[in-house]
Amino acid sequence: MAVGTLATVKALDPVELEAMGAQMILANAYHLHLRPGDALIKDLGGLHSFMGWSGPILTDSGGFQVFSLASLRTVDEDGVEFRSHIDGSSRRFTPESVMGIERNLGADVIMQFDHVIPGQSDEAAAREASERSVRWLNRCARELRRLSEAESGPPQVLFPIVQGGIHEALRLEAAETIRSSGEWSGFGIGGLSVGEAKTDMYRILEVVDDALPADRPRYLMGVGFPEDLVEGVRRGVDLFDCVAPTRMGRNGAAFTGDGRINIKRAEFRTDVRPLDEQCDCAACRRFSRAYIRHLFVADEILGHRLLSLHNVHFLVRLMAVARDMVRAGTFGGWSRDWLARYHSRVTIPA
Amino acid sequence: MAVGTLATVKALDPVELEAMGAQMILANAYHLHLRPGDALIKDLGGLHSFMGWSGPILTDSGGFQVFSLASLRTVDEDGVEFRSHIDGSSRRFTPESVMGIERNLGADVIMQFDHVIPGQSDEAAAREASERSVRWLNRCARELRRLSEAESGPPQVLFPIVQGGIHEALRLEAAETIRSSGEWSGFGIGGLSVGEAKTDMYRILEVVDDALPADRPRYLMGVGFPEDLVEGVRRGVDLFDCVAPTRMGRNGAAFTGDGRINIKRAEFRTDVRPLDEQCDCAACRRFSRAYIRHLFVADEILGHRLLSLHNVHFLVRLMAVARDMVRAGTFGGWSRDWLARYHSRVTIPA
Repeated sequence: MAVGTLATVKALDPVELEAMGAQMILANAYHLHLRPGDALIKDLGGLHSFMGWSGPILTDSGGFQVFSLASLRTVDEDGVEFRSHIDGSSRRFTPESVMGIERNLGADVIMQFDHVIPGQSDEAAAREASERSVRWLNRCARELRRLSEAESGPPQVLFPIVQGGIHEALRLEAAETIRSSGEWSGFGIGGLSVGEAKTDMYRILEVVDDALPADRPRYLMGVGFPEDLVEGVRRGVDLFDCVAPTRMGRNGAAFTGDGRINIKRAEFRTDVRPLDEQCDCAACRRFSRAYIRHLFVADEILGHRLLSLHNVHFLVRLMAVARDMVRAGTFGGWSRDWLARYHSRVTIPA
Repeated sequence: MAVGTLATVKALDPVELEAMGAQMILANAYHLHLRPGDALIKDLGGLHSFMGWSGPILTDSGGFQVFSLASLRTVDEDGVEFRSHIDGSSRRFTPESVMGIERNLGADVIMQFDHVIPGQSDEAAAREASERSVRWLNRCARELRRLSEAESGPPQVLFPIVQGGIHEALRLEAAETIRSSGEWSGFGIGGLSVGEAKTDMYRILEVVDDALPADRPRYLMGVGFPEDLVEGVRRGVDLFDCVAPTRMGRNGAAFTGDGRINIKRAEFRTDVRPLDEQCDCAACRRFSRAYIRHLFVADEILGHRLLSLHNVHFLVRLMAVARDMVRAGTFGGWSRDWLARYHSRVTIPA
């Protein structure tokens, strides 16, 4: 999924996303509730109409943002009291209120409201948050049913989120409890890529992979870089989202099959090649590295546009190839070769 | 002309300009000489190839920038010594060196290097600068001929620039001297819209209109707002350039047939209408004022893109209609009605 936190994939136009074959956009309930307001978006016909995107949209519930962006948080069994990161105003999210927000936004897939904790939390803290998230899932499901019956609206499916930090037993327990508690269309895997070691993330993905039904999509939340996507698919993940392609793009970093490059470097001043010689995106078909470097040196918006476009296109194409390889039964060998080539170039921090 | 000072029309992609029917882009010799360097652009195949625009390009000579942006200027008959506004490095422009720069850039129309003075200069200062500009024109023409003969390159035409401040006699003298000094493909009118009263600008345009050949395009440099374009066409002007549509667009101001609006105002929070109900640009066809306001409040790049696109499209369409009206012989009445409607709404500064 391309990330459109505030109902826009940063620097890109929906027609560009459609042209590159992007299938789904993520938006964020916390951010849109604060600005411009979910009730306003409902009045304006919902998120699809508001942002000019007719394809599928998923909204994250704001669980992560409440625990990472907002300040002066107090959590109890009912919900979370916090202050807006924009104006400091006091707010309260509960599983029920978040379902109301996500229903107003009208995305196709909505994530449950969950209790998110720091990546390195000990087992006791992780257990408390995970078990609370399961109880909140049941309240989300009940509230979504009530709202759907009370007022007609777009069909929406609720994804649970498997939590449990880096503790295998907790992850297994959460996956099994959630799985047996309802008929879910897909499963979120939360609380990863939040500071833990990559090997921990891979280990947890393998545990969760075995515990979730094979015929439902698994969504690894907030991940990631190109190599993380390939590693995730190797471990049974179907769906990803990450700000990396657009955020890094705005900082001058471009993904290529040979690793990451920083276009601002002097070595690209006279480089007539496209960002990635294997890429057929709208930037690579028309512009040289030398031109895009010039745009960054001169701080021109078109530079941000072109690198954002290229990076999102790179991930969309990467996943299209991965799907082909999975279908052909050749994913294992392909992914090993792809990772070896990608890691062969020393990557340059943005 | 859409303004692409640094080889990019700010926030826009060349394909968007083509789709809206923009015919010509302006770039700037002073800026591109300093960054990324005209020799580099020549090595990379010239400006058209560098910036991905196959349509006509005009380069301004940098006369205006040397006198407005650069510091520690000293002017003599040979040329101008100045310091770069980017790094303070010492530089020297002469009519000959500027022709070399503009030849490297490879635009289709290149402007002469001229001596630009403040808008309210007295007649003696205006005369000195105007007469020097005429002498520099002859040096530019000679040098361009020499360069064209010495090395094959793209065909380029040189436009002289009529100077003379707000002094009618000087303007007349300059126009006549230039006209009789060669066979020019078109004429720039410089030194207007630099702080003088609008009535002074109109008066000078009327004087110059009579003095220039009717069958050659007149280019009013650095102008302007929608109303200035209509007023200019009324006074015989064919070609314009101005940063207003993109600069104001980035500040949240949108041109409409009923005057200018500032999209950031609270009144647009729930406004489902497009920016301009008569407009068929890629922004107005798809997005509400409420959405674009949200993008500006959230400081999203797509907001800058959509308003820049709308404003440039607005001027391109305005000039297309003006051409139709001129051809149909109905321009006079149409322009009066258009100006009355445009001025009927109190315009809101960006």
